[in-house]
Amino acid sequence: MPNTVEIPVSALENDAAYRAAVIDLLGLLAYGELEAFERLAADSALAPTIDDMGALAGHAAAEQRHYELLRSRIVELGADPSAAMAPFVAPINEFHARTVPSDWLERLVKAVVGDGIGADFYREISRFVDADTRAIINQVMSDTGHSDYAMAKVRAAVQADPAVAGRLALWARRLLGEAVTQAQHVIAERESLDALFMPNVTTEAAASAATLDLAEIKNVIERLTDKHYQRMFALGLAKTSERA
Amino acid sequence: MPNTVEIPVSALENDAAYRAAVIDLLGLLAYGELEAFERLAADSALAPTIDDMGALAGHAAAEQRHYELLRSRIVELGADPSAAMAPFVAPINEFHARTVPSDWLERLVKAVVGDGIGADFYREISRFVDADTRAIINQVMSDTGHSDYAMAKVRAAVQADPAVAGRLALWARRLLGEAVTQAQHVIAERESLDALFMPNVTTEAAASAATLDLAEIKNVIERLTDKHYQRMFALGLAKTSERA
Repeated sequence: MPNTVEIPVSALENDAAYRAAVIDLLGLLAYGELEAFERLAADSALAPTIDDMGALAGHAAAEQRHYELLRSRIVELGADPSAAMAPFVAPINEFHARTVPSDWLERLVKAVVGDGIGADFYREISRFVDADTRAIINQVMSDTGHSDYAMAKVRAAVQADPAVAGRLALWARRLLGEAVTQAQHVIAERESLDALFMPNVTTEAAASAATLDLAEIKNVIERLTDKHYQRMFALGLAKTSERA
Repeated sequence: MPNTVEIPVSALENDAAYRAAVIDLLGLLAYGELEAFERLAADSALAPTIDDMGALAGHAAAEQRHYELLRSRIVELGADPSAAMAPFVAPINEFHARTVPSDWLERLVKAVVGDGIGADFYREISRFVDADTRAIINQVMSDTGHSDYAMAKVRAAVQADPAVAGRLALWARRLLGEAVTQAQHVIAERESLDALFMPNVTTEAAASAATLDLAEIKNVIERLTDKHYQRMFALGLAKTSERA
């Protein structure tokens, strides 16, 4: 993975466009975590055993902790958390509305894929922010591993009945596709994120560093996709870890 | 409130009936917390604003932490958590099935009432157990105050529109009634809880102390009910803090 970009922490105070972009980013991540909480809690309520129910409740509670961390940071930066999250309600809800699991295994695959793409995205985006913002993102990322349980369950189900692999592989591909679609909408519609995503904005941050230009966005999506296929292989849903 | 009963911690090792009763009690509390998590998470998903959604997610996550503490204690005592919880799935689910809120305010009242009765019950039951079990129960209880948000919302709604108070007061009374009904089923059906609830069982614990006999159960229910009406008054759902 490329090196991190050196944006000074002072940009949070001196560079209104950069600060707005970071608050936007935190709003996106916070609402994403809150919705992940809701989905995993709903999965937990439908779990076939008390064990599954408890494990998914634990996974949901981890997402709530992430939400709380991100929300606190938005407050710390003097912004209103609800206002920061509001622009991302529609695309994130849209993603979930377009990917309603039809059974328990699809729910588990969604938990694993969502968690994985989320963690990869955090890792990527942390390279394009100041050290203080990066510290928050790393703190959220360090509290991971909650989808191991779902991963083990999916792997066991595929081993027990290899016939389900094809259906679940298609499902996982659809999840990735919908995630990329909604991400593109967010990038296209949120001009305030430009200070992170576009190099031609005249901000201190943009001027000082090679920010996330379109070529770099393409690289990021490539890497996210590669990692997705590595996870598919680990789940037993792909014959190789190479992209199909 | 009466003094606590002095059951020696050694009873957990030396007194099989007492140990079974404690595991039963922990199973009951654990499943109660897990179901409380599910209900609050469902409330969160239906919340009218992002703020409400986040607050109720935080309340749900607190219940998940309680569940985790109680579950760990069951494992520590060498028992299987799912087996310990299993007998209480039906009565607790039955309580929830009989008290499905019809709107957002009824959801909030249920969160407040459930939280309150739960905390009161923890306080009562902690008097009848050994010091180690009491420590776990106190640890769970110390992580409270999560329903303050729901309480403030209900109070504000009643002030804004006093006409809702009558309906919500009836709803709260029904919640209490159903909770008592299911509690009586649990006491009647779970013989293993006898070592806590009955004085005539020949256990070290029962022999050594004035355990929770039928007269004491009546007192406990009286106190729980009194506290419930104090909460109703605090919510603006009763004209006095005395029982109607």
